[in-house]
Amino acid sequence: MVVKSELKLIKSLQQKKCRNEHGLFVVEGKKTVEEVVNSKIKLHKLLAVDPEGFVEGVEVERITNRELSQISSLKNPNGYLGVFHIPEQAEQLLSDWILVLDGVQDPGNLGTIIRLCDWFGLTDIVCSLDTVDCYNPKVLQATMGSITRVNIQYRVLDSFLNSTKLPVYGTFMDGDSVNDSKLPKKGIMVMGNEGKGVSNSVAKLCTYKLAIPQYGGETTESLNVASATAILLHEIRK
Amino acid sequence: MVVKSELKLIKSLQQKKCRNEHGLFVVEGKKTVEEVVNSKIKLHKLLAVDPEGFVEGVEVERITNRELSQISSLKNPNGYLGVFHIPEQAEQLLSDWILVLDGVQDPGNLGTIIRLCDWFGLTDIVCSLDTVDCYNPKVLQATMGSITRVNIQYRVLDSFLNSTKLPVYGTFMDGDSVNDSKLPKKGIMVMGNEGKGVSNSVAKLCTYKLAIPQYGGETTESLNVASATAILLHEIRK
Repeated sequence: MVVKSELKLIKSLQQKKCRNEHGLFVVEGKKTVEEVVNSKIKLHKLLAVDPEGFVEGVEVERITNRELSQISSLKNPNGYLGVFHIPEQAEQLLSDWILVLDGVQDPGNLGTIIRLCDWFGLTDIVCSLDTVDCYNPKVLQATMGSITRVNIQYRVLDSFLNSTKLPVYGTFMDGDSVNDSKLPKKGIMVMGNEGKGVSNSVAKLCTYKLAIPQYGGETTESLNVASATAILLHEIRK
Repeated sequence: MVVKSELKLIKSLQQKKCRNEHGLFVVEGKKTVEEVVNSKIKLHKLLAVDPEGFVEGVEVERITNRELSQISSLKNPNGYLGVFHIPEQAEQLLSDWILVLDGVQDPGNLGTIIRLCDWFGLTDIVCSLDTVDCYNPKVLQATMGSITRVNIQYRVLDSFLNSTKLPVYGTFMDGDSVNDSKLPKKGIMVMGNEGKGVSNSVAKLCTYKLAIPQYGGETTESLNVASATAILLHEIRK
């Protein structure tokens, strides 16, 4: 039995306001919880329907399926839930390339982008203050364990970009083809909002404007921001 | 007022079995419905909470918000719904490159992949019979209007790949780096299931095995199949 006040607290962590107030976030799913437990992120509490054999050497509280479904953000909770402390923002950015997100709204997109950074070895993401929170349950569903290996910060982009000495690349519909561009060893890559792209004030701070060429005929849609990020990070690493 | 039997029919189209039985599928959202109406896909019925100004020259039935929420697949239905006839499978594949999907399960991934093919001008996708149905509402949410410009077939992959004269490229964790491979002007690119990759029987029919190099350190996750497709289609078109 988990006490009621604890269940209420965990459920409240689905909201950003409550996550920030308590400095806690929730991860679900056996494999991902185990990965976060084994990372630098500090554990607050583990819950499992069947604690047997789940994360050795750590206390696991038993929870009923009924209780879990009350607090889970998943339609079909899968028996394991971990509550962790939100890590402090790292002071320094150490990655050769830094990914900047300007107003990415969709949690699935942010989750995929974090996973991409992990794959391509970019350890720093700097998000605008209006980018979706990386501890949102839907983001965490999409990142899998990558959240433990990528340092994510939320900053005012104008002042961050004004203070950097790195070349700033932004992605725009009317930019130069990335196929014709030689990318340097270090830099900043800015990706914009799903509908509106890079905001005007940030666009002014981009030294280079890139585009991914389109080959379809009458297509009007833009490339999904996570797909575009996949292609650009691949190009950075080639 | 829409008659009850009609509402029941439309709601049933959320299930693949019912879509195939009636040969109909549902699209929601003003912009996407308009795009499908203006395509070759045959219209069955249009419904709107506010029919004023929605698709000129076509009959639009009025539906209440309450009725719409009963039949919509969206948490927050947005006032517009179209029912369309599932198009016949095209006999011929006309694309220079053909994308083959071997057991892709996630509707969001398939939707993103269809949109990518549209962007990169690949007009043919051949799916294994166990790939998620492209008329699934969640797939259509993610494709936007691209579904009207890409021809999607479901086939037994073994016999399809056995019958082709095109070079068959497959993506594998242990394949050759795509960065070192020169891709021809025509071919087939095979992408596998989210967890299991390309199935054994299909792997035997791949002439070339490709991989997207990883740059992260201790990462164990694989690249999301939609992200991998983005990178490979970009490479095909370069």
